[in-house]
Amino acid sequence: MTVRKYKLIIAYDGTGYEGWQARSNGRGIRQTITGACEQLLGSAPEIIASSRTDAGVHARGLVAHLELTDGHPLFTGAQLRLALNAQLPAEIRILSAARARADFNARFDAITKEYRYQVWNHPVMAPLLRHQAWHIPRPLDLAVMREAAAYLTGRHDFRAFTAKRKGELLDSTRTLHTCQIKRSGARLTFHLIGEGFLYKMCRRIVGTLVQVGEGKLTPAEVKSLLHPPTEHQAGMIAPAHGLILWKVRY
Amino acid sequence: MTVRKYKLIIAYDGTGYEGWQARSNGRGIRQTITGACEQLLGSAPEIIASSRTDAGVHARGLVAHLELTDGHPLFTGAQLRLALNAQLPAEIRILSAARARADFNARFDAITKEYRYQVWNHPVMAPLLRHQAWHIPRPLDLAVMREAAAYLTGRHDFRAFTAKRKGELLDSTRTLHTCQIKRSGARLTFHLIGEGFLYKMCRRIVGTLVQVGEGKLTPAEVKSLLHPPTEHQAGMIAPAHGLILWKVRY
Repeated sequence: MTVRKYKLIIAYDGTGYEGWQARSNGRGIRQTITGACEQLLGSAPEIIASSRTDAGVHARGLVAHLELTDGHPLFTGAQLRLALNAQLPAEIRILSAARARADFNARFDAITKEYRYQVWNHPVMAPLLRHQAWHIPRPLDLAVMREAAAYLTGRHDFRAFTAKRKGELLDSTRTLHTCQIKRSGARLTFHLIGEGFLYKMCRRIVGTLVQVGEGKLTPAEVKSLLHPPTEHQAGMIAPAHGLILWKVRY
Repeated sequence: MTVRKYKLIIAYDGTGYEGWQARSNGRGIRQTITGACEQLLGSAPEIIASSRTDAGVHARGLVAHLELTDGHPLFTGAQLRLALNAQLPAEIRILSAARARADFNARFDAITKEYRYQVWNHPVMAPLLRHQAWHIPRPLDLAVMREAAAYLTGRHDFRAFTAKRKGELLDSTRTLHTCQIKRSGARLTFHLIGEGFLYKMCRRIVGTLVQVGEGKLTPAEVKSLLHPPTEHQAGMIAPAHGLILWKVRY
């Protein structure tokens, strides 16, 4: 049996979806793509993703892989992309599909992941951004937020910046290469690049930095959450709809 | 009787609305704001807008005015904004409300209007922009588009760039101060600033320039549509959902 592996880059509007992987028979991104494959191929290949985004989180560049075998058409990458997009709803798009080496693994080969988080910092929310940005009506002090962000950059035990999840957390040390905040008018964009993120880590970093900007936490208090690391003690978890999985590098 | 006039700056996501002014009892932006006023004030003041956007068109800075009288609460601008936003759906936001001079007229006092139009120029549409940008899958030649845009800038008879509407077109001469196209990755943004626009003029300019970029029209052909002016002869009318009424200056 010959096996052909494909690497997919996927973008989606996570609004109204239960995340990459829905529980039971909910509306998940992965289930929807699996359904499109089934329509197209008559069978549903397993789709392995770089990341499992939560309900409401968006993606501009999630990476996944799947394998086709002898029974399937001999698609080129471009053909597979076109055929899948024809089956998928407009909220989900295959940006590219390409043949990959047999040993490529979208989940385990990722070197860095980049997330972006959008905040709309204005007394009134922008209607066109309401599903893609978190609305913070009161002014934020960007200087102290950046001071706190600098403490988070680097290799640390981030156990304070995750959330409870079933099963034990074996290793909560991660390297955060970039934690920058850019402002363009009322829009703040958080750029987070790391070698991997704990469960809800991005949203907890953003929520904590916003609380710093509101004067509810100091940069020194943020620093102290890392040394010594304290479990689930950081600031609030920012809402899902402001987060976009931006890019995965291999 | 004392009359207090207010100037409103309004933003909306036009998706699913029949435009600023809906026919009969459809779902219009103006009707929705009038309904919110009625909830708040017990009566519905007349709302006069700078522009009447078409179905599906968005706004970031439409300006309108309304008058309150003795029977109404003595709202400050900030109070009126808060109270109206509390009644309105999330698609429509009053960005600001302020007391205005008695003779201020949102429609007739406008000096320039700025529209922006977004095109996503990539083989695959970006899901998060699907209600706010026109998808053009094939590459566009920006250099010839800009050449054609330069011909359109200035004071011209734009009758080729409008659409049929009931009633005669008395004067189709307008001044287009700015007609620029900016590119950021796959996103093209058209910036159109003028002292006033004919019916569907923005969308017909964008549609025509996109056809130039696709090689279906030449810049010289665009120029010839202005000299001598020819009725409704220009290129296609770009779809509504890429257009945003950006700013009105007084």
